Amino acid sequence: MTSNQVLSEVEFNVVGKRPIRPDGVDKVTGRAQYGADTNMTGALQAKVLRSPYPHARIKSIDVSKAEAFPGVKAVITAKDLPFAALSKEELGDGYTALKYASDHMMASDKVLFKGHPIAAIAAVNAHVAESAMALIQVDYEELESVVDVREAMKDGAPLVHEDLRTNDMGQISDKPSNIAAHMSYSTGDIDKGFAEADLVMEREYTTATVHQGYIEPHNSTAFWNTDGQLNIWTSTQGSFAVRAAVANVLRLPVSKIKVTPMEIGGGFGGKITAYLDAITAVLSKKAGVPVRTLMTRSEVFEASGPAPASWMRVKIGVKNNGKMTAVETDIAMDAGAYPGSPAMQAIVCAFACYDVTNGKVDGYDVVVNKPKTAAYRAPGSPQAAFGVESLIDEICGELKLDPIEFRLLNAAKEGTRRIEGLVAKRIGLVECLEAARDHDHYKSKLSGENTGRGVACGYWPNRGFQSSVVMTVHFDGTVSLLMGSVDIGGTRASIAQQTAETLGIAYEDVKPTIVDTDSIGYTFITGGSRTSFATGLAAITAADDVKEQMITRAAKIWDTSEDDIEYVNGTVSHKSDEELKFSFKDLARQLATTGGTISGRSNIDPTGEGNGYAVHLVDLKVDPETGKTDVTRYTAVQDAGKAVHPGYVEGQMQGGAVQGIGWALNEEYFFDPTGKMLNPTFLDYRMPTTLDLPMIDTVIVEVANPGHPYGVRGVGEPAIVPPMAAIGNAIHGATGHRMRSLPMTPGKILEAGWENGNSSGG
Amino acid sequence: MTSNQVLSEVEFNVVGKRPIRPDGVDKVTGRAQYGADTNMTGALQAKVLRSPYPHARIKSIDVSKAEAFPGVKAVITAKDLPFAALSKEELGDGYTALKYASDHMMASDKVLFKGHPIAAIAAVNAHVAESAMALIQVDYEELESVVDVREAMKDGAPLVHEDLRTNDMGQISDKPSNIAAHMSYSTGDIDKGFAEADLVMEREYTTATVHQGYIEPHNSTAFWNTDGQLNIWTSTQGSFAVRAAVANVLRLPVSKIKVTPMEIGGGFGGKITAYLDAITAVLSKKAGVPVRTLMTRSEVFEASGPAPASWMRVKIGVKNNGKMTAVETDIAMDAGAYPGSPAMQAIVCAFACYDVTNGKVDGYDVVVNKPKTAAYRAPGSPQAAFGVESLIDEICGELKLDPIEFRLLNAAKEGTRRIEGLVAKRIGLVECLEAARDHDHYKSKLSGENTGRGVACGYWPNRGFQSSVVMTVHFDGTVSLLMGSVDIGGTRASIAQQTAETLGIAYEDVKPTIVDTDSIGYTFITGGSRTSFATGLAAITAADDVKEQMITRAAKIWDTSEDDIEYVNGTVSHKSDEELKFSFKDLARQLATTGGTISGRSNIDPTGEGNGYAVHLVDLKVDPETGKTDVTRYTAVQDAGKAVHPGYVEGQMQGGAVQGIGWALNEEYFFDPTGKMLNPTFLDYRMPTTLDLPMIDTVIVEVANPGHPYGVRGVGEPAIVPPMAAIGNAIHGATGHRMRSLPMTPGKILEAGWENGNSSGG
Repeated sequence: MTSNQVLSEVEFNVVGKRPIRPDGVDKVTGRAQYGADTNMTGALQAKVLRSPYPHARIKSIDVSKAEAFPGVKAVITAKDLPFAALSKEELGDGYTALKYASDHMMASDKVLFKGHPIAAIAAVNAHVAESAMALIQVDYEELESVVDVREAMKDGAPLVHEDLRTNDMGQISDKPSNIAAHMSYSTGDIDKGFAEADLVMEREYTTATVHQGYIEPHNSTAFWNTDGQLNIWTSTQGSFAVRAAVANVLRLPVSKIKVTPMEIGGGFGGKITAYLDAITAVLSKKAGVPVRTLMTRSEVFEASGPAPASWMRVKIGVKNNGKMTAVETDIAMDAGAYPGSPAMQAIVCAFACYDVTNGKVDGYDVVVNKPKTAAYRAPGSPQAAFGVESLIDEICGELKLDPIEFRLLNAAKEGTRRIEGLVAKRIGLVECLEAARDHDHYKSKLSGENTGRGVACGYWPNRGFQSSVVMTVHFDGTVSLLMGSVDIGGTRASIAQQTAETLGIAYEDVKPTIVDTDSIGYTFITGGSRTSFATGLAAITAADDVKEQMITRAAKIWDTSEDDIEYVNGTVSHKSDEELKFSFKDLARQLATTGGTISGRSNIDPTGEGNGYAVHLVDLKVDPETGKTDVTRYTAVQDAGKAVHPGYVEGQMQGGAVQGIGWALNEEYFFDPTGKMLNPTFLDYRMPTTLDLPMIDTVIVEVANPGHPYGVRGVGEPAIVPPMAAIGNAIHGATGHRMRSLPMTPGKILEAGWENGNSSGG
Repeated sequence: MTSNQVLSEVEFNVVGKRPIRPDGVDKVTGRAQYGADTNMTGALQAKVLRSPYPHARIKSIDVSKAEAFPGVKAVITAKDLPFAALSKEELGDGYTALKYASDHMMASDKVLFKGHPIAAIAAVNAHVAESAMALIQVDYEELESVVDVREAMKDGAPLVHEDLRTNDMGQISDKPSNIAAHMSYSTGDIDKGFAEADLVMEREYTTATVHQGYIEPHNSTAFWNTDGQLNIWTSTQGSFAVRAAVANVLRLPVSKIKVTPMEIGGGFGGKITAYLDAITAVLSKKAGVPVRTLMTRSEVFEASGPAPASWMRVKIGVKNNGKMTAVETDIAMDAGAYPGSPAMQAIVCAFACYDVTNGKVDGYDVVVNKPKTAAYRAPGSPQAAFGVESLIDEICGELKLDPIEFRLLNAAKEGTRRIEGLVAKRIGLVECLEAARDHDHYKSKLSGENTGRGVACGYWPNRGFQSSVVMTVHFDGTVSLLMGSVDIGGTRASIAQQTAETLGIAYEDVKPTIVDTDSIGYTFITGGSRTSFATGLAAITAADDVKEQMITRAAKIWDTSEDDIEYVNGTVSHKSDEELKFSFKDLARQLATTGGTISGRSNIDPTGEGNGYAVHLVDLKVDPETGKTDVTRYTAVQDAGKAVHPGYVEGQMQGGAVQGIGWALNEEYFFDPTGKMLNPTFLDYRMPTTLDLPMIDTVIVEVANPGHPYGVRGVGEPAIVPPMAAIGNAIHGATGHRMRSLPMTPGKILEAGWENGNSSGG
């Protein structure tokens, strides 16, 4: 039953093949160096003291006993951060932004979530640091906390920040609120649209706080040269993002900080925020030696950034034939302790699969006493899709319409203007829907009792942003490829492939290296499904720079004009004298004696990223006795534009689907009423394992992105968007009940009751 | 009396200033990482077993007991090098070159010098490795050895290589010889020239084997990734040279080797050959973990590459007015155990200070049973100058001519064709001689008994060769500068200065980094006085690349053509709209939002290196009782073209003079008759200390090199060329005796006798 398909348009020499990843051998043999593998001579180990309360005023901190503890070399509190010495007057408009950034690293006046850093200790080893933590005396005044996003929005709710005012479409409100921002887009005439509908349905949906669950906890090692140069080794999705964050909080110019990105054990958006780097640096400065800080798993759960919990209201009007006439949604997203939830992405993504004539979307960014949320794969889109795709399924059920045909009828395509105003370029949603419709999975008959089938779509705009690449030709004809993009999901391979394709050489002849922030130009994070696209494009541009110079060199050797020479498929040849011809390797050898090697460089900020769409099909079976759901068949269809390395695209699709399945069925932070997480371990926070899952079948659809020479689109994110709704829709098939709250646990399913205990259709 | 002067032609903003070196703080605080500071987890320590005989056949090596010794993890002999498995047929023409290279690393059939590596052991620590060395049983058949270069040239001398045939100007001789090569240049009609002379003098000179005496012993750490990637951390003047040497001996493509150059504690030409890297790599491969090898000081003396001992005959004919009519020399240079002495450089440099109409120079590269010699600052030129400049002084004495006026009369200048055929471009010898003549030192009266004054010139052609630079503009307006040239004498500073000058920014805003061989294009060694010139030129070229892109970016921001924009002194401005203007920093900030950062790159192979000339003046006093010479005043004059950082140019001039003083008076390898060095420690090998020396005054003459935009010439080498002759000439003044053998030890001076015990003139 397992199958992976690639529905391809174009063939290349290297792009589209499945070579071995350059970092593979070192990773499987344990030689790859992750952040926790840093082991500098004389390094101290640090531990962070964290707030036991979700919301409390810090009345005093006494670190004197901890400082006196044998083996302790440095203790810091927020007083050691530059913010403590700066006044509101000095900082002006930047005051609040710096206060939030600095307090998030280490709380000054209030703690805003359980796990909020209060102090940090560097000691000769972690056990000494841990022992000394007990000696730090903090006098807290506990405050009433607010945990639920809807509660937090109410008048009279406890205020997370006493001075936070709502930014309502650019207008700043008068009185403080937990609503950090309200944003809105609309198109057409929504009242007219709903009036034209034959059927209007409106529902509410909620999702829980979930964590990315990357296997490697956060870590950081810092060391100062005595001339004020700060060196950081860390696990991050973006070394330049760490540099910027540390520069901001420590008030340093970016050039005084060198960040070396170590190998990363998963990120999914959760390794963009620099939690430990600034405080580790301050400890190192104070101690005068290198300091390393490692989080435990519980610290990761309680004090890194999970994905937001959300509340959503969705209203859709349709004609009897299924044509949508109007859509509307309100989405409130839990930002955690500091503003910055993906409410904007949620409202932009909510209806992006559809050609909407009349629509209105409103988003709310809401602070609560929980850890500040972070990006998690397609941030905001999965929550929005859970609501929209569930309601569409309900409408299809009501109107007896095939859910794929309904989506095809309404699908966004090239030229569709989205609610936020952007017009789609060539996109592949229709092709994905058709591939799903025509797939054996969808055509097969669902059998057995308590089984259901669900369908849902997903969207992620994908990102461009800045990337830099430098490459040098070795005299043996291989190419050294330097980049600033850290490799999470195989981008060394995908960028080396694009380099090899452009130069017309073998993949094995490209040697990719990820270098530190001093050794390459600014490069945005590995995130937003941008790396194979944008850094790939940077590699293509740098390779073009190499090609031009190779032509110049051949012209010099042949004593002719560059115009007489062409570079095709790795062969440099004279256009009119077929005797004159160099393979790349032969010309590389000649470089040694004709002026030295050739380097190519590029710094780009591309805007041609192609939007990504996914369609998922799921079959499942619900146990009526226990309420447990077993996913029995799963097919993920996605437009990759061009899958540079289909194996890693399939990995992204399968990984996204699996994380979505966890989000749908099991995963959630259990909070006590005050906001203390009750399950901060992998034993109690239940992620799916291979035993919980069928093989995830994949269909890669390739509708070339016109913004990239090989048609590449980002692929990392769309796959996590459809699963929750697809599974919810399938559970309806199995149980007859609509689930509108994530996760759809056995308990909730049993509670909801069993409307058609014997169903076998979606 | 101490003074440093700069006789300058042009002023720049940054070039010519004396900023603090970027690596200074880390070096003086002990934080800089040298090769011996590598300390990888699980690394083994290695020791090399070396031959106790200068010449012996290896009949057998039994390593079994050493391998069985507890704590020993790997033992290798020459059998573990690829050469052992390759046949003469396979290697063809490359057989001998590879045999020499491989045998030099580890002897296969014969040992050719005391200290020649026989085997190496990697063990859990150095003591275990050392203990196990005693368990290796080597059965040697001792052979008669040859030590002296003139003895080695005789028919019937013991042959160092049984199959070595003389390459006599391209003709290969029939029978084996220790003379590896004979080379010759001539110009004009030498017989006619000598016939026209009023005075012809002919003398013989010898110099001893001396060592560069760098403070840091050789070291290497090697580690293989399991995919066959070899990583080396080492102390070297050229990471790419190490890469090439290891690639050659281990038969690997260069791209499979990454060499990271650590900080270097002196080289002077002696850290170009890779003595330890290949064998450390083979040990690491065998052991499967990192291996580090460190030499002791005695190993450095006995088994790295000292400067050659030499024999020389010089004949010069002059008119009574001092005009030279013909010159002639034979120079035989001791290559040590394998061919490759600087005999060619010696004959090219010998008369390069003079405008020679009729001349002939012959050089002989001769192998002997001593460690293979290596480059040492201006290789070959000091030995040649000792002869030529001593004989000229003798002629001046005979003809009662002022030695500086004699040299001015005969001096090479722009347009002079040298014996080897090259025509001098703009050079500064005349200006140096004039500066010396006009200097207070030369004009002062020499006083006291047994004192003497000496003058001599020196020449080094300087080198260009390939360099690569990449630089990136940080958003704070600083520039990250990456290069492949290791920094021995302050080139981080001198190249950062040229970068800052070109970009029109502050020196402090350029952040230089020396990167590994994968992270930058091919770059030739730091040697030949090339780095500030060639890598400086590469930096200027890369900075020009940045400037062009800055203009393009400004054109984009101002929505105008690039032709409307100029970049002057770090300001980018609209030519006709004076409102439109960006400082470098302001535009750098704008890069973040207008397409990302900018990187500049260059790979160059410049040929415009300007020749370097030096003139030295020395006053000294010889103790008639002990024969000990005290240098009492010393002035070094040198054409720097443009001194990028005068402080480091002065350092080069002073350092060269001091090494020359050591070479002149004290330093030599004492060999027993078979070729065993008897003084391989700094206690017995007597280098000058500060207590032995006066302050070395310097005069930097700046005659711009037309081959470099700022006029830069190499400065590292000319200063070691004149001291030996200048001191010998001064000793003649003090004692009335001509010294023609180096070093001019107290013993030799006493032995020579005292012809004018009361002299006070040169």
